[in-house]
Amino acid sequence: MTLPRTATTFAPPVMEARRWLEGVQFTQDMPLINVSQAAPVDPPPEALRRHIAETALNVPDAHLYGPVLGLPELRAEVASQFSAAYGGDIAAEQVSITSGCNQAFCAAIMSLCGEGDEVILPTPWYFNHKMWLDMLGVTAVPLPTGPNLLPDPDQAAALMTDRTRAVVLVTPNNPGGVEYPSDLVQSFFDLARDKGCALIVDETYRDFDSRTGAPHNLFADPDWHDTLIQLYSFSKAYRLTGHRVGAMITSAARLAEAEKFLDTVTICPNQLGQHAALWGMQNLGQWLSGERAEILDRRAAISDHFPMLEPEGWKLMGVGAYFAYVEHPFDMPSDQLAQSLVRKAHVLTLPGTMFTPTGDPDGKKQMRIAFANVDRAGIQTLFERLQGVGAL
Amino acid sequence: MTLPRTATTFAPPVMEARRWLEGVQFTQDMPLINVSQAAPVDPPPEALRRHIAETALNVPDAHLYGPVLGLPELRAEVASQFSAAYGGDIAAEQVSITSGCNQAFCAAIMSLCGEGDEVILPTPWYFNHKMWLDMLGVTAVPLPTGPNLLPDPDQAAALMTDRTRAVVLVTPNNPGGVEYPSDLVQSFFDLARDKGCALIVDETYRDFDSRTGAPHNLFADPDWHDTLIQLYSFSKAYRLTGHRVGAMITSAARLAEAEKFLDTVTICPNQLGQHAALWGMQNLGQWLSGERAEILDRRAAISDHFPMLEPEGWKLMGVGAYFAYVEHPFDMPSDQLAQSLVRKAHVLTLPGTMFTPTGDPDGKKQMRIAFANVDRAGIQTLFERLQGVGAL
Repeated sequence: MTLPRTATTFAPPVMEARRWLEGVQFTQDMPLINVSQAAPVDPPPEALRRHIAETALNVPDAHLYGPVLGLPELRAEVASQFSAAYGGDIAAEQVSITSGCNQAFCAAIMSLCGEGDEVILPTPWYFNHKMWLDMLGVTAVPLPTGPNLLPDPDQAAALMTDRTRAVVLVTPNNPGGVEYPSDLVQSFFDLARDKGCALIVDETYRDFDSRTGAPHNLFADPDWHDTLIQLYSFSKAYRLTGHRVGAMITSAARLAEAEKFLDTVTICPNQLGQHAALWGMQNLGQWLSGERAEILDRRAAISDHFPMLEPEGWKLMGVGAYFAYVEHPFDMPSDQLAQSLVRKAHVLTLPGTMFTPTGDPDGKKQMRIAFANVDRAGIQTLFERLQGVGAL
Repeated sequence: MTLPRTATTFAPPVMEARRWLEGVQFTQDMPLINVSQAAPVDPPPEALRRHIAETALNVPDAHLYGPVLGLPELRAEVASQFSAAYGGDIAAEQVSITSGCNQAFCAAIMSLCGEGDEVILPTPWYFNHKMWLDMLGVTAVPLPTGPNLLPDPDQAAALMTDRTRAVVLVTPNNPGGVEYPSDLVQSFFDLARDKGCALIVDETYRDFDSRTGAPHNLFADPDWHDTLIQLYSFSKAYRLTGHRVGAMITSAARLAEAEKFLDTVTICPNQLGQHAALWGMQNLGQWLSGERAEILDRRAAISDHFPMLEPEGWKLMGVGAYFAYVEHPFDMPSDQLAQSLVRKAHVLTLPGTMFTPTGDPDGKKQMRIAFANVDRAGIQTLFERLQGVGAL
């Protein structure tokens, strides 16, 4: 008997990790430090909340079905701002709004792959990418990245077959935290175009990239859309995780295909969330710069404080975006260690096993620390707790 | 080469129909009558809009990620109200909130089917159901319903194979408008249980059923959840189409499977929409009764005025929920007729070809009229226009 689609993949890791908290007593002098999920814990700034409220009250259309591919004004705003930011030519017709960035990935794969096709994912990978490929009967071909967490285009080329439909890059990387150099991204683009497959670049964390200027020059190629599918999320920049608004930027022809999937799976992105994202893009540029500066300071705090863990054998493999990706020193697989850290250190991380193929030895040595919600002082506390674990 | 998933199905019918409007000049004395989409054109009542606004301003969590399966309070409210309405025992853990009812259907199929499995859909069918099955490599097995638009369980039994994973009923029916008798629904449930497959009952239009009391007794069976998957939408009842909130009611075990899909495709339903649905359920019962009465009056207007079309050969096959499903008298397939009606009568309907298998002779004779947005006087005008078409 054929397995149902959902039986071909694993349970959502974030929900599984949440269950590890059950039955553990956290104390006032040692409260839980939750570095498991990549999400703001604060609501959007008051001005944006007010805009959402006023839209709900006064804009009747904001309660009704909208176009499948999204609010035309938001598509145009993304096209205009991204054209400027990346030094390229992106038309509103090449932008689709989706119900979050996960859905943008799902739509991209639906437009590219059939049963038995292959997609190359650098490891450690983002687990929802792996889950979607599993559920669609698409083979996720792991591309190990090694100690610097950067994928190698030549290794990717060697993995390609006539079933390869796409290579997926996440930059800044989740879970690795590393920012892929512009020329590395370009090499992958050239490879993909050469092989006639797509390059999917998930830039969910672009607003927290430490570099100034465009993180790559792919859009400067006038024919970028024959190969590139860019994914974006409004959730992190404007603290809109609960509103489910993301974007996919690619050829209008591919969007016409994606429209079939998006129509069938949600009809349209929710309207209030789209109005919120539009207002955010138009009014919160300055505020977002401040947010970015704060995240970059927390990132610096990770680097500053990490040496205290090194004598015990911890290694910092990557840091950036919302994440530090680390190697732990224990003779214990990371999924067991993560559960032990909840009980012993009141710290919730996600183990590398959640970001790597089953049985992968690297994943057992690694952990992701999503530090965006922990300030400089909190990061020091976090590391003090980890430092203590070896002695327990 | 394997086709990409989206290439295995057709373009969204509602978007296609909208394109038929392009280039047609509508006039003040003959404005467009749009009976193509099943959606309220008015926003929710002011009290609900105010509640959404206040939630946006004052409830921080309403902007952040929530549980994949939905807001616990909303799951509990659905469980409680549906238990009472259907005379059965539905637990909150058996209710999942989804990003609209289409997504609930998608999740149900993902938890049931793999490549090459089969699902029985009475025809005319709801096109998004067909599209999802196409895109997943699941065979949609048509079960023709004949002139009364009611599917026959014996015919369904004859279509079953060892690949059959579900039968899908939509009641009140889209596009047919008919309300399936309780004992007919029960027969399908018994058949499905007997054959070890699921019965999916899409009750998007339940709030506009003309009958009093429970439309079926399936939930009275203490083991209903071994076979039944009920789908619901908050969009029509509370005018929340733009908020994307629906529900799936089935076993907690199946929801744990569906959770994998829902997490991957949208992470969680948007939070403001869920708060809106909850407030609607708790406060708009009386208002919804009034809405239902108005829809039932429009339905009566369809029946009252339809005889004016009968001398020209039109037949009313079904009327109920938001829909009249009719047979036209012209020697022209319905997809051509529908485009002709836009130009000649300034009326936008959806042709039966959109609800039936390619080439199906019945579909070519049929049209769907989504009358929910047209009042009694407007329905008379609509029929006068259709009456005139034969003479043009």
